[in-house]
Amino acid sequence: MTVIPHWLNKQANLIPHHTAIEHEDGTVITFRSLQEKSQSFAKKLTNVGVKKGDHVGLLSTNELKLVIAIHALSYIGAVGVLLNTRLTPDELQYQVDDANISLIVTNDGLLPKARKLTLQKLETFLSVLEYEEQFVTLQEELQLDEVFTIMYTSGTTGFPKGVTHTYGNHWWSAIGSVLNLGLDKKDKWLATLPIFHIGGFSIYIKSVIYGMSVYLMEQFDTQKVHEAIMEKGITIASVVTVMVQRLLELVDEDGYPSDFRCMLLGGGPAPKPLLEKAKEKNVPVFQSYGLTETTSQIATLSATDALNKIGSAGKPLLPAQLKINQPDSDQVGEIYVKGPMVTTSYFNKVEDTKEKIQDGWLATGDLGYLDGEGFLYVVDRRKDLIISGGENIYPSEIESILSGMEQIKEVGVTGIENETWGQTPIAVIVPKATITKDEILAYAKERLAGYKVPKEIYFVESLPRNASNKLVRSELINYIK
Amino acid sequence: MTVIPHWLNKQANLIPHHTAIEHEDGTVITFRSLQEKSQSFAKKLTNVGVKKGDHVGLLSTNELKLVIAIHALSYIGAVGVLLNTRLTPDELQYQVDDANISLIVTNDGLLPKARKLTLQKLETFLSVLEYEEQFVTLQEELQLDEVFTIMYTSGTTGFPKGVTHTYGNHWWSAIGSVLNLGLDKKDKWLATLPIFHIGGFSIYIKSVIYGMSVYLMEQFDTQKVHEAIMEKGITIASVVTVMVQRLLELVDEDGYPSDFRCMLLGGGPAPKPLLEKAKEKNVPVFQSYGLTETTSQIATLSATDALNKIGSAGKPLLPAQLKINQPDSDQVGEIYVKGPMVTTSYFNKVEDTKEKIQDGWLATGDLGYLDGEGFLYVVDRRKDLIISGGENIYPSEIESILSGMEQIKEVGVTGIENETWGQTPIAVIVPKATITKDEILAYAKERLAGYKVPKEIYFVESLPRNASNKLVRSELINYIK
Repeated sequence: MTVIPHWLNKQANLIPHHTAIEHEDGTVITFRSLQEKSQSFAKKLTNVGVKKGDHVGLLSTNELKLVIAIHALSYIGAVGVLLNTRLTPDELQYQVDDANISLIVTNDGLLPKARKLTLQKLETFLSVLEYEEQFVTLQEELQLDEVFTIMYTSGTTGFPKGVTHTYGNHWWSAIGSVLNLGLDKKDKWLATLPIFHIGGFSIYIKSVIYGMSVYLMEQFDTQKVHEAIMEKGITIASVVTVMVQRLLELVDEDGYPSDFRCMLLGGGPAPKPLLEKAKEKNVPVFQSYGLTETTSQIATLSATDALNKIGSAGKPLLPAQLKINQPDSDQVGEIYVKGPMVTTSYFNKVEDTKEKIQDGWLATGDLGYLDGEGFLYVVDRRKDLIISGGENIYPSEIESILSGMEQIKEVGVTGIENETWGQTPIAVIVPKATITKDEILAYAKERLAGYKVPKEIYFVESLPRNASNKLVRSELINYIK
Repeated sequence: MTVIPHWLNKQANLIPHHTAIEHEDGTVITFRSLQEKSQSFAKKLTNVGVKKGDHVGLLSTNELKLVIAIHALSYIGAVGVLLNTRLTPDELQYQVDDANISLIVTNDGLLPKARKLTLQKLETFLSVLEYEEQFVTLQEELQLDEVFTIMYTSGTTGFPKGVTHTYGNHWWSAIGSVLNLGLDKKDKWLATLPIFHIGGFSIYIKSVIYGMSVYLMEQFDTQKVHEAIMEKGITIASVVTVMVQRLLELVDEDGYPSDFRCMLLGGGPAPKPLLEKAKEKNVPVFQSYGLTETTSQIATLSATDALNKIGSAGKPLLPAQLKINQPDSDQVGEIYVKGPMVTTSYFNKVEDTKEKIQDGWLATGDLGYLDGEGFLYVVDRRKDLIISGGENIYPSEIESILSGMEQIKEVGVTGIENETWGQTPIAVIVPKATITKDEILAYAKERLAGYKVPKEIYFVESLPRNASNKLVRSELINYIK
C-alpha cells in the first residue's frame, strides 16, 4: 500500500506562487490559492454532510469551481462521480442511482437539469460556499489504492458502467505521460476538453503532480483556442480530431510559436490526410490512444516518431503494456492493455469487471495492430466493425479516405443491414463546398476495394458527436432518417 | 502490489537507438544493445547457478560491465549486493556473510582482493562471459515491492547495516527527482560517483526509467570532468562537495555551456562560501539531501530557489515527507523522512529496522531545521555533534566558516574530549597557501562564538574521505596523531 503526501499540499509548499490555473477570462490562481480554496470548500462540504467514502456527483461544465470541488473531495477522501452535462435527466438518474450518489453539486447553469433528478441532496457551488467551514481533519496523505473518481462509459452492450479510478491510477497516468513528453518548468497545458471526461480531468491532476499551469477554457471555440496558442505561452494542448481539423484552417505558414510543443490528440483514430496536413503546416500533433478505463492515454506517439509514423498511436507508455489478442491474418485483433493506470474495477459490476479485466489485462473493445517496430495502429471500435460478405470493413478507413476530399468537411461511416451481404457501409457527409454523390463515389472507387465503397451517401449539416466531440457512429443512422 | 514492465525492455522498445551509456573512452551503447548484453549476461549468470532471490555480490569500480551485471540481475530477479571496493577484506567478509551472498562477481582489478574472501563462488565479469547462455525465462515485469539491491551503510553504532531497496524504492526515487528537475530528451547525466553507492547507482536507474543517456566516468578526475561538461553535451552532473571545490577552480568567467542544467550536490552539507563562489561563477549547484536509506536524494533545492536559498537542501521531493523531530529552541532536531523511496528494512536486522523506521517514518540520524518557508537546512550528522559545556556545536558550521579563507583548501572539524567542557572542537586543515594557526584563529574569533572557536589547529596533506569522497570526521582524530 503506497502512500504519498497530498499532491496539492506539496505544490502549495514547493511552488506556492506558481500559477496553477489561468482561466481564459484572465483570472489566475496560484497553487497556494488553489489549496486554500479547495481546503475551505472541503470544510464547507463537510458541513453539508460529506464524509470520507461518500459518493458525490459533480455536474458542471468547465469552470474553476469544479476544479476546486474536485480537490476538495480529495481532502475529505470522498469519491467524485463526474457526470456528463449533456446527458438527459433519465440517463443521469441511472448513474445517480447506480453510483450511490448521496449529493450532487452542480453549477448554476445546470441547476434546472439537476432539479429534475430524484436526489438525496442537491447543492450548487455557490450554495456550498454559503456554509460555514466545519472543523475537520483534512487528508494530508493519499493512499494510492483508494478510489478517487468514478466516470461512466457506455459499454459495448447494455447500460453504462462506472469506471473507478484510484489515486494511483491518476498518479501513474500522469507519470507515464511525463516520461514520454518530458517536463519543463514553463509548461502550460491548454484544457478545453470537458472535465467530466478523463481527457479533460487528467490535465488538472497532471497540474498538481507536475506543478504545472493549466489554461482553462470553458468550451472549445476554434478562434479562441487558436489565439490562446498564439499568444498565451501554451506549450501543450489536449485535443480531439475535429478540433485539429478546425484549428488547422486558421494556422498560417508560420505555424505556431516555437514554445508550443504539441497537440496531444486523443478520442479515437484521426484521418491520415488530416495528420499530413498538420505535418505540412508544422503543427506537431501527437496521436495517442486511451480510454476512460486507462485513465487517459496509455500509448502516445513520441516526438521522435511523430513525423515518421503518421497514423500510429505510438507505443505504450513506460509503465504500460499492450498486446493484440488473437490477431487475424492481417494482425488485427482486440487491443489488451495492462498497467498501474488501468482501472481495477467497474463500480458495483462484479461480472463486467471479471469479464473485461483478467490478470490485470483489460480488454479494450478496440481493434488494432502493431507494425514491425511495435507501433500501435488503432483500426476501429470493435462494435463499429462492419462485416460485409465475410469481409471486415473498418469505418475509420473509409472516413479517412473520404476526408481527403477538399470539399468534405466531416464524414461518418456506419453499416446498415443488407439482405445479401449482411451489412454494407454508408457514408454521412458534411460538405464544405458543392459536391455530388457521384463525385464522392468516383473518388472512393479509385481508392477503396469495391466492398468498402459506401452503398449510400447522405448529406447532413452536422454529425452526431458526444460531449468530447467524438463521432458517435451508432447515431449516424438517426441522422439520415 | 504494483507491477510495471521491465524498464530496460521498455526503453529498448521505445527508443532502441538512443544512447543509454556513453563511456568516457568513447564507447557508446544504445538501449537496445544494453538490453541485449544484459539479457545475455543474465542467461550466463543462470548457467553459473544464479536464480531468482539469490544474493549476488558485485565488487567493481565503475565500468560498463558492472551496469550490465546490475540489469542482468533484474532479469533474473536476483538481488544485487553492491560492495564498496575500498573496504578491507575483513570488512567485505562481514557483508558477504551478513547478506547471505552466494556469489561475488568482480572485475579483474579487484580479483586479488576478492580472492582473500571466504566465498561459495567467485567469478569475474569476463569469466561469466565465458559461460554458455542458459535457456531461462527472463523477468518481463518488475514487482515494485520486491527487493532489487542491498547497500551497506555504517550505522551510528555497531556494525554496518544492509539497506534493502525494492524496485519501487528505486522507481519512486527517480520519479521524485524528475518532477523536481524536469526532463528533456537531450539530457545526458554525468556519472562519476561510485556505482556501489546509491548516488552513483541511482543515475543508471534514472537512465532506464527516463530513457536518458549517462556519461560514465570510471573515477573522478577534475580535469576530465571539467572537459566533459565543456564539450560532451552534459546537462546534469552528480557531485559531492570536494568535486565542486575542485571544478570551480577550472571554470572561467564564461561558466559552463548553456545546455548544462545543474550540478546535483549530495553527500552532506556544503560550505556556504563554496556555494557563493559557484553562484559568482554562474555554475548552477543544486544542493540536495539524501541517504542510502532514501535511495538517493529525498530533498533538493529547485532551480527556482537555488540562488535565494544558498545553503539549503531545499524541500522534500513531491512523493516525500520530511519533519524535524523534537526540535530544540533553535528549531534544530533530528530529520525524519517518509515516502515510497524510503527503505522498508535493513536486511536481516529486525530490531534495527523497528528502531529506525516507525509508521513509515525513518529517523535519519541527521540534524537539521526548516526555515519559515519550509526549506531544509541540514546542520550535521547527529553523531558528529560536539557538545561543549552544554552547548551544541555543529562541525559543519565551523568548517563552512573556515573554508571561506582563501588559503584553506579543505577543512574538517571534530570534537575531542576535554575535562572542563566535556568536548571541544578542533580543526584539521589542508592549506593551499602559507597560513599560520594564529591567522586562522583570528579569522575564526571574528566570526564564531568563543565556544565554537577550535581549540587546536592541525595542518595535514589530505583529509580522510570515504569512497564517495565524503569527509569522515570520525577518522580526523587519527590524522593528527
